[in-house]
Amino acid sequence: MRATRSPPTRSRSKSVAAAVSPLAPTALAKLAPLDGVRLATHACGIRYQGRDDLMVAEFAPGTAAAGVYTRSLTAAAPVLWCREAQKDGRARLLVVNSGNANAFNGAAGMAAVERTAHKAATLAGCKRSEVFVASTGTIGVPLDDAKITDALDTAMARLDPGAWERAARAIMTTDTYPKLATREAAIDGVSVRIHGICKGSGMIAPDMATMLGFVFTDAKVPAPILQSLLAAGAAKSFNCITVDSDTSTSDTLLAFATARAQNPLPYAADDAKLADFRRAFHDLLLDLALQVVKDGEGASKFVRIAVTGAASSAAARRIGMAIANSPLVKTAIAGADANWGRIVMAVGKAGEKANRDKLAIRIGGIEVAREGSAAPGYDETPVASHMQGRNIEIEVDVGVGHGRATVWTCDLTHAYIDINGSYRT
Amino acid sequence: MRATRSPPTRSRSKSVAAAVSPLAPTALAKLAPLDGVRLATHACGIRYQGRDDLMVAEFAPGTAAAGVYTRSLTAAAPVLWCREAQKDGRARLLVVNSGNANAFNGAAGMAAVERTAHKAATLAGCKRSEVFVASTGTIGVPLDDAKITDALDTAMARLDPGAWERAARAIMTTDTYPKLATREAAIDGVSVRIHGICKGSGMIAPDMATMLGFVFTDAKVPAPILQSLLAAGAAKSFNCITVDSDTSTSDTLLAFATARAQNPLPYAADDAKLADFRRAFHDLLLDLALQVVKDGEGASKFVRIAVTGAASSAAARRIGMAIANSPLVKTAIAGADANWGRIVMAVGKAGEKANRDKLAIRIGGIEVAREGSAAPGYDETPVASHMQGRNIEIEVDVGVGHGRATVWTCDLTHAYIDINGSYRT
Repeated sequence: MRATRSPPTRSRSKSVAAAVSPLAPTALAKLAPLDGVRLATHACGIRYQGRDDLMVAEFAPGTAAAGVYTRSLTAAAPVLWCREAQKDGRARLLVVNSGNANAFNGAAGMAAVERTAHKAATLAGCKRSEVFVASTGTIGVPLDDAKITDALDTAMARLDPGAWERAARAIMTTDTYPKLATREAAIDGVSVRIHGICKGSGMIAPDMATMLGFVFTDAKVPAPILQSLLAAGAAKSFNCITVDSDTSTSDTLLAFATARAQNPLPYAADDAKLADFRRAFHDLLLDLALQVVKDGEGASKFVRIAVTGAASSAAARRIGMAIANSPLVKTAIAGADANWGRIVMAVGKAGEKANRDKLAIRIGGIEVAREGSAAPGYDETPVASHMQGRNIEIEVDVGVGHGRATVWTCDLTHAYIDINGSYRT
Repeated sequence: MRATRSPPTRSRSKSVAAAVSPLAPTALAKLAPLDGVRLATHACGIRYQGRDDLMVAEFAPGTAAAGVYTRSLTAAAPVLWCREAQKDGRARLLVVNSGNANAFNGAAGMAAVERTAHKAATLAGCKRSEVFVASTGTIGVPLDDAKITDALDTAMARLDPGAWERAARAIMTTDTYPKLATREAAIDGVSVRIHGICKGSGMIAPDMATMLGFVFTDAKVPAPILQSLLAAGAAKSFNCITVDSDTSTSDTLLAFATARAQNPLPYAADDAKLADFRRAFHDLLLDLALQVVKDGEGASKFVRIAVTGAASSAAARRIGMAIANSPLVKTAIAGADANWGRIVMAVGKAGEKANRDKLAIRIGGIEVAREGSAAPGYDETPVASHMQGRNIEIEVDVGVGHGRATVWTCDLTHAYIDINGSYRT
């Protein structure tokens, strides 16, 4: 998903973005083996040198698959492939490379995916439609898929049920830390587990999913139900985050259920016995999505924006995203400036119903505006103090209905411009 | 339109934004007196010290008025006032202050406008609905309109037909140079003139007009025709520029026709005898709009984006704006990086029909991509050289139809973040 640049390329993660985000979790989640999943990584040298850039996950027979993808009209070849493969709802392999997005490569791009899937299917003894492929990296540079197909034998000979952190590291591009999460849940008294890994830090305004995210469970969940859970969960997690308002050509979020656990089959996504699983599944998606925001390029502050009183939840989300994507709001937050007038502006440009004369704004829990003007006796001191912190809380009530949504973003700093503008200078 | 900040306030134009934009015109347009218009400025001390912050324009009886405004749902009180006043289509006075937007001030905001209009109408001996009011500056800070009403007598005693540059300077906020333009035209052989002034440099993604723009002509043009010309002109000028994707609460573009010239009355906006006037009028609007882009906060490069092959001209404009507003495209331009993959990404996220496999991109006239992948034998050297310049030309053909549009923007630099983030630190 990073933009094209001409050789000689350097690993961005070795240059300006080398420092780990100040918003990174203090410890990585530890993921134990998950029944029905084995992982391998390999250094193919696609773009990065001296690190793994290939990740392979192998699934037990009977694994169900689901996916949501970028809505970009310039979607990458692997996205088109996965959309097709998903129709059968079965998965045996996932092959992911970093360093090259295999996007905007014309027919050659799809041919590269086909060769990769063919080789992987041959090695695994499965159908090509049971192989999912994802790529992340530069756009518009032909992918030398021979580097991947040549490495597949070696990688698949080393499949390991414990390689979760290595897998999460192999899919990183400009990420400053690997992103992992795990949850437990019970389905009708049977304990199941959910693991997830993802990557992403720039070009983040997912319009179906984030850049790349993979969720794995040993639960027995049929593909149509898994799809329903995934779509609903993405809507309130990956689709409610933004770093820079830019949408990747490669956003892919896949879920795999190996069916190794002995839970009774649910009959629908809203089956009561799935309640705990659904909660855990969605909680894990949100965990991963927030890890992406916290690794936003150049991010120094994590921002939660809760919108209430909107005409609908969709309207609330759009208002929240208008605030979250406003460069003026984001630069004010970077500068710890309690510029609430810019929030008013962003509400006004969102194009959704809002009652200017009922608009209320709280920052860090402190009322700054109500009924369409500054709060009576407003004292900026405690708000300014909140703005100095790492975690910024913004609440906006637009005074027209009961729609509510929460979105998350980060600030816009000099480091974002360093990472994205001055890279080659 | 600047966001709220607490006292003590400093004039931003005296601090980080003090240097004139490197994209500024080499010379200011010289505006001769225009029959039926007199101007005055005054230092009221609303926010700025030691400079004029009030501008008054007086029009001859019989002057027609037209206006287009922000679509913001949190529009400022003066915008609501002008929308009402415009219904009569008559103007005798225009009163503009800088330093305070009189936005999000609740009922007190409208009361301040009413008192200003009342005082001005009394002094001029006209109806209140013939007084147009505009304000630009901080949002959410009560406007002390007594500073304006107290100054009106003095200002109106000093009305001067030659004070165009002073007027353009008095309405500036974060602008680094005053914006003036003039054109001549003939209507049925009668020579007429058009003058314009405007201000704006941040919070610029006009959705009906720019921040503040005022156009004056001595031509005899009835208000409904003037309105039609203004709306059509704004659509291809002020509505095709963006600095930061943020839409002001106060965007106002007004036109005044004093009817002092002896041209025959046109009977409609598409009257053949208006052809030359229409061309000159629209040309002047574009001149002013591009001056705003060239004063974009922190701008170091001026970017023209021409989109062709879209499903409609509206679709072409939306695709152009998606490119122009992309932080990744804008930071790449700031860094002179020929990251054309980011243009592909922006086309993909625009949500408009595009044929990925026919997409073609030219930068500085050089083909970089065609038919959905990098151009055969693409050599980045001449493109990189173009990217080093001040004026960046991007052409995109999306391969689905005949819709075309041109939009203009600037790059996203560290100075934008300095101006908007670190102002108070």
